[in-house]
Amino acid sequence: MNIREFQAMMRQLYFQKDSARGAKGTYNCLVDEVAELGVSLRNADKEALEKEFADVIAWLASLANVTNVDLEAAALEKYDHKCPKCRHAPCECAFQH
Amino acid sequence: MNIREFQAMMRQLYFQKDSARGAKGTYNCLVDEVAELGVSLRNADKEALEKEFADVIAWLASLANVTNVDLEAAALEKYDHKCPKCRHAPCECAFQH
Repeated sequence: MNIREFQAMMRQLYFQKDSARGAKGTYNCLVDEVAELGVSLRNADKEALEKEFADVIAWLASLANVTNVDLEAAALEKYDHKCPKCRHAPCECAFQH
Repeated sequence: MNIREFQAMMRQLYFQKDSARGAKGTYNCLVDEVAELGVSLRNADKEALEKEFADVIAWLASLANVTNVDLEAAALEKYDHKCPKCRHAPCECAFQH
């Protein structure tokens, strides 16, 4: 599924609640899910880990909906088959991404 | 672009560095990017906001690569055109997602 289609699906499922909660409240939910992902990384339960990954991308898409960001366009604008810093693929930067 | 294709692109660009950094280090980078996204939500710079969204999904894909999670499969296993809690579309749960 395209990133854009996933975001549209999240809009269809949750936009009414997401928009009522607002950007700050939705961001706080994203932060909570990232924390849960961190906890699940320390355990051996792969299925639980996968569910936490699902929740993080779901809340990220919800936040993008609330803030009128096209997540796919944003992702591909910055990461377009080469590193945005060194312009190489694979990345040849000395440090992080 | 499919979620799976985006994750594969991140693997091609960054897997060598991501795997060397490991799951914990890559998770910490994700947390840093989520914090930067939170800061950018408070500003009016839409372009900067879009770049932070790009960074969060990029690091989430990197972490999925390091932990051998198929992000698209995980997302669609849980969120498949209906709310995983109430099974309705749109969601009819009383509280959060």
